Amino acid sequence: MKILVLGADGYLGWPTCMHFSSLGHDVTAVDNFSKRRIELEDGIQPLFPIHTLHKRVEIWKAMSGHQIQLTVGDLTNHRFVYKLLEEDLPDVIIHYAEQPSAPYSMYTRENAVYTQYNNVVGNLNLLFAMQRNCPDAHLIKLGSMGEYGTPNIDIEEGYIDIEHNGRHDRLPFPKQPGSFYHLSKVHDSHNIMFACKLWNLRATDLNQGVVYGIDTEETQVSADLNTSFHYDHIFGTVINRFLVQALAGIELTVYGGGSQTRGFLDIRDTLKCVELAALNPPLNGEFRVFNQFTEQFSIIELAELVCDAANILQPGGSKLHPGIPVGIEYVENPRMEAENHYYNAKHGGLTQLGLEPHLLTLDSVIEMLKAMNSVQINHNLIQPTIKWQSG
Amino acid sequence: MKILVLGADGYLGWPTCMHFSSLGHDVTAVDNFSKRRIELEDGIQPLFPIHTLHKRVEIWKAMSGHQIQLTVGDLTNHRFVYKLLEEDLPDVIIHYAEQPSAPYSMYTRENAVYTQYNNVVGNLNLLFAMQRNCPDAHLIKLGSMGEYGTPNIDIEEGYIDIEHNGRHDRLPFPKQPGSFYHLSKVHDSHNIMFACKLWNLRATDLNQGVVYGIDTEETQVSADLNTSFHYDHIFGTVINRFLVQALAGIELTVYGGGSQTRGFLDIRDTLKCVELAALNPPLNGEFRVFNQFTEQFSIIELAELVCDAANILQPGGSKLHPGIPVGIEYVENPRMEAENHYYNAKHGGLTQLGLEPHLLTLDSVIEMLKAMNSVQINHNLIQPTIKWQSG
Repeated sequence: MKILVLGADGYLGWPTCMHFSSLGHDVTAVDNFSKRRIELEDGIQPLFPIHTLHKRVEIWKAMSGHQIQLTVGDLTNHRFVYKLLEEDLPDVIIHYAEQPSAPYSMYTRENAVYTQYNNVVGNLNLLFAMQRNCPDAHLIKLGSMGEYGTPNIDIEEGYIDIEHNGRHDRLPFPKQPGSFYHLSKVHDSHNIMFACKLWNLRATDLNQGVVYGIDTEETQVSADLNTSFHYDHIFGTVINRFLVQALAGIELTVYGGGSQTRGFLDIRDTLKCVELAALNPPLNGEFRVFNQFTEQFSIIELAELVCDAANILQPGGSKLHPGIPVGIEYVENPRMEAENHYYNAKHGGLTQLGLEPHLLTLDSVIEMLKAMNSVQINHNLIQPTIKWQSG
Repeated sequence: MKILVLGADGYLGWPTCMHFSSLGHDVTAVDNFSKRRIELEDGIQPLFPIHTLHKRVEIWKAMSGHQIQLTVGDLTNHRFVYKLLEEDLPDVIIHYAEQPSAPYSMYTRENAVYTQYNNVVGNLNLLFAMQRNCPDAHLIKLGSMGEYGTPNIDIEEGYIDIEHNGRHDRLPFPKQPGSFYHLSKVHDSHNIMFACKLWNLRATDLNQGVVYGIDTEETQVSADLNTSFHYDHIFGTVINRFLVQALAGIELTVYGGGSQTRGFLDIRDTLKCVELAALNPPLNGEFRVFNQFTEQFSIIELAELVCDAANILQPGGSKLHPGIPVGIEYVENPRMEAENHYYNAKHGGLTQLGLEPHLLTLDSVIEMLKAMNSVQINHNLIQPTIKWQSG
């Protein structure tokens, strides 16, 4: 198949390119490098140095024999998007090309507006270009479990059957997103659902949980194929941050009481889920929604698991703090979120398509810690400085 | 109270300014005249000539003795918005300042993107400026009943109690908007709901039905105070268009089969609803939603009512077509909408606050037709040329 990966320079984008390329698909990789710009602005670097995308595409070609086509451009430039789809004529469009950080979106008015403008307008341009140039392509859009918030009922996959005053309908699941970033994803979902109905397009919205992990089958081949792994307070997801803190022998920073519960998945399962979605497309006109995660944990459960793994791996403490086991530090929650809440989110759709998850265990955490051994971290990038309610 | 009216040059904005001014409130009127620009681009004119907003403010001062402060600016310019709220310090902000036409938003990609950019970013800037400069002000935001679509269950006012798998929550009512314009309103509602929770702001979202009518108490004083009344296919709402067609003696254009059902209200009730919302503000932190309409009709019911009224008023036919009674023409539905559907939308909130509606009757339609007597219309502006699915 012809696979177009938008946001190919990112944590998930680059492994996705290699994954489909290794499966023999014809991959085009697109990025505007906006995340690299944000990294520069905030003095952030990924944990492992990564090559430019151009260089990684070259190395991938040399190592795998597979050519990934690279195109640089911005989805908010509609002329670029129309031309891209006209020339590429993809079967599947995997759309990661959005400002991906909730904290970033909460920092200033400018950041909030940039996030919604970039994500919503880029996605609208893509929908219009699909309608014109490849109306049968399958759009796989990465959404977020954070779009749902924490309702006091089970979270279904995109739709809910409602009985009300003696009548029934199946309606979009009500959403209560918790940041300007998550709001942008909700806006996108509404726009895509409408475009599917309007123009008979087909799309899969993958409401993804929090991804963790360093390596995929392809990145493991060589450090030269590393993906952009972040542990900082802007782009670092919680387990990845905990892993880095544990390895450095510093306390794991739990926001608030830590009883917040979320869905999580291994980066290798992200690739598998996207592959399963691509291989099993919806019909034209269908807006299909999957909740893409494999397990639920509270933050405190994760912190304890990572502490246990680190203290088994480093029984004498870390190099930095010999003799001292890794522990947990509770910091003021910078986010606005319920800490004690019901959480039961369905995620059977992808399992039905054949997903066999990599689960998070003491052993798997130890494996990840081993893979990260002796890394340089910048402690100043970890503490959260962006508070949700400061405005 | 200090009342800030955003979008003061529009069909509802100008009468709202006069209404609050006549009640003795201190009104500031703001517009960027974007609707006038769209009128020029499409060769559209309102039915009655209207003065510039500057001139109407002067005439209002001369006739009523009340000063309305006029400020020209664009909400997408955040510096303008911050300065406006810092200097004006309103108690109530009535926000009509959005691209208001569903057909306009469906015309081209550029129109769709403009509509979502203008409406969403303008509204975001307003929320950030409120948080900084007047966090206790009451935002009254005009939404649309069209945000809900036509679900097969009763439409509640903003929230719905859901029992699901033995658990319960009160959640935002699921929305299925039917145009890029209506989508922009849904995005706005999500952003405002979040801002209320985040910054303890207070807001009322008025999901308004289709407004009809020419005159309010204040416009009736003089034709020099007329509001911008449209009958064209871009800005003309359905009853207003029918009234003009009936008066001209041309057939009333019903889109599709005409069994589409919607909520409607008299323009005088819009003013009363906004007044009731302003006088009865929600608490800080509350995102309150009212469905703002007074009666439900199908399109065919409205067409028949207007035909009957016109044929009573003009028993000999119109000047243009003497001897021929006014009838109905069924045209291909340019919109994508269900024509046969359940529709029962709740609207008790404003009634509880004291709304006494002006209902649509044969007599009231005759009165409106009389008030419009001998107008010049441009037939070319009426037929729908923007088709939802053409892209």
